[in-house]
Amino acid sequence: MLIALLPGDGIGPEVIEQAVRVLDAVTGDALSFERGLVGGAAYKAVGHPLPPETLDLARRADAILFGAVGDPDCDALERHLRPEQAILGLRKELGLFANLRPARLFPELADASALRPEVAARIDLVIVRETNGDVYFGEKGMRTTADGLREGYDIMSYNEAEVARIARVGFETARARRGRLCSVDKANVLETSQLWRDVVIEVSRDYPDVTLNHMYVDNAAMQLVRDPGQFDVIVTGNLFGDILSDQASMCAGSIGMLPSATLNSRNQGLYEPIHGSAPDIAGQGKANPLATILSAAMMLRYSLGKAAEADRIEAAVAAALAAGARSPDLGGRISTAEMGDAVLAAL
Amino acid sequence: MLIALLPGDGIGPEVIEQAVRVLDAVTGDALSFERGLVGGAAYKAVGHPLPPETLDLARRADAILFGAVGDPDCDALERHLRPEQAILGLRKELGLFANLRPARLFPELADASALRPEVAARIDLVIVRETNGDVYFGEKGMRTTADGLREGYDIMSYNEAEVARIARVGFETARARRGRLCSVDKANVLETSQLWRDVVIEVSRDYPDVTLNHMYVDNAAMQLVRDPGQFDVIVTGNLFGDILSDQASMCAGSIGMLPSATLNSRNQGLYEPIHGSAPDIAGQGKANPLATILSAAMMLRYSLGKAAEADRIEAAVAAALAAGARSPDLGGRISTAEMGDAVLAAL
Ligand SMILES: CC(C)[C@H](C(=O)O)[C@@H](O)C(=O)O
Ligand SMILES: CC(C)[C@H](C(=O)O)[C@@H](O)C(=O)O
Repeated sequence: MLIALLPGDGIGPEVIEQAVRVLDAVTGDALSFERGLVGGAAYKAVGHPLPPETLDLARRADAILFGAVGDPDCDALERHLRPEQAILGLRKELGLFANLRPARLFPELADASALRPEVAARIDLVIVRETNGDVYFGEKGMRTTADGLREGYDIMSYNEAEVARIARVGFETARARRGRLCSVDKANVLETSQLWRDVVIEVSRDYPDVTLNHMYVDNAAMQLVRDPGQFDVIVTGNLFGDILSDQASMCAGSIGMLPSATLNSRNQGLYEPIHGSAPDIAGQGKANPLATILSAAMMLRYSLGKAAEADRIEAAVAAALAAGARSPDLGGRISTAEMGDAVLAAL
Repeated sequence: MLIALLPGDGIGPEVIEQAVRVLDAVTGDALSFERGLVGGAAYKAVGHPLPPETLDLARRADAILFGAVGDPDCDALERHLRPEQAILGLRKELGLFANLRPARLFPELADASALRPEVAARIDLVIVRETNGDVYFGEKGMRTTADGLREGYDIMSYNEAEVARIARVGFETARARRGRLCSVDKANVLETSQLWRDVVIEVSRDYPDVTLNHMYVDNAAMQLVRDPGQFDVIVTGNLFGDILSDQASMCAGSIGMLPSATLNSRNQGLYEPIHGSAPDIAGQGKANPLATILSAAMMLRYSLGKAAEADRIEAAVAAALAAGARSPDLGGRISTAEMGDAVLAAL
């Protein structure tokens, strides 16, 4: 099976390296890896954050293991050349529409959350975020108003097919967990959200075993702080999902711990840690590779049909933490490679 | 000076009543009050959530003291008849574009926050939210795609004049506080945000004494959990402000404590607690009136030029809390009226 490795910028290459060590250890030679340039690194090398060769590799691969993109050197570039466009381009070109982000506090890390330990301990949720539509991909631009003023605009929209397919992912995810789905929108203000809500209700008829509720996004942002333990699965659009999933990650403690998967309808997927490229600590061996290692486990489970191997990795991560392995973000001092060693030792 | 009292739905009338008692006590007969129907209460009485008489009263008044709107009986109505439209209509018709939400933890209530006490104690920020534009007020509707699919759409936009005037409120607010302004946008994806960022930078030239930084909204949602003490003033658009200000409130503890002001360019303002109508506890004397009492204090300060009276109310609220007054939301048992009594006693 072919894995596209796209390390990207900043700490991306370091964390990917540890994930590859772990994958090698659990899969023997079942996987072959091919590397591609992406993000600022790709722009600097060949003038585009998502070069055609990388896109081709991504299409050919059974799954993509992605590091991180983002490079301050590229801040002044036009938007379509900035590193972040690589991730948006991959999502769109490969039809990767379903971003799954589990947020759960490892009991060993109860101190890492800004929430009270008793609140944080109850977090065990998955955010299912749509990533192919919404205001991200609508028509947008700058124009001049009748009064001669500069105006920026972006069209937000969803059609019923787009909502239905992500709603199904939400319901299926909830069915495989505790059977509760919370759909988040802003239907009291947005027509896009009204359609979202209508379609989610229509799809719910196929899932009588899942309990559905609806929440406005402002309330959801409150409830994720007040009592995140109330959520099982949250399904929401691209923009609200961007905000809420980052918020939920932080509630669950260190952002260095959390993996994500973005799937298309063929279960091909892009797997990446939720953290960014952290240019301030790049190349220093300070990055925590666990989010990427856990993303590799998700890849085994969702795209490669290797659930047992995924379980082994997740158990090894828990064991490494239990044995006291702590990178700087977790209040410890071990290096990126030493954290990889700790997981390998636990395997 | 004429105050429009718009109690609205649910617990609105109860909390407004206590605020009026407190206002009477500190202002003698300097204020006259006139009541108007709003929200579900107005719909039920006269068929519209914002009747013309109410709008007229709001225009004539020096300031508006608003309770809450929202009534489950109205959930099935068409959007333009729902209670929430009243608040959107007032903001738009009166040009109330600058929503100010201070979030601060009263030291007596350190236990009320879901955040660790040492994290929560550092919260002392103001969110300045634009409330006349963005995707709230753009063209919106339902349409059919070329493939015959239902599609909902909403146009997000800001022009430079809209951004500049709210940016100025942000800079002025920061100047009067600790001199730090964080502008929140999603300029890596949205053209509306790119214009926002460009204009905020242009306006910043007039405020060399204020330190400006920019943050993406997903990161801001994380940082508000991780370390809310890092913020002084946040300025942002209507949609992001809706989400972040509710999130920040919850970080600061009980939502029953936090006031808000929404001002227009004549410093006429609408003052309201940030909590909703809480239909589940309406009419039972369980609501905490402090957010509304503190909103009345903001009204004295911002719209009526009575800063000394505002200070007196805020000191009395702190004294009532210090003396142990606790409504159910704060873990206590005193009633709405008894909380009013406690503030009056402290005055
Ligand atoms: C980099 C950015 C465009 C992206 C997004 O907003 O989707 C990121 O925040 C994410 O969540 O993956
Ligand atoms: C009721 C709703 C339309 C409103 C908004 O989204 O602005 C509310 O959430 C608020 O923040 O005042």
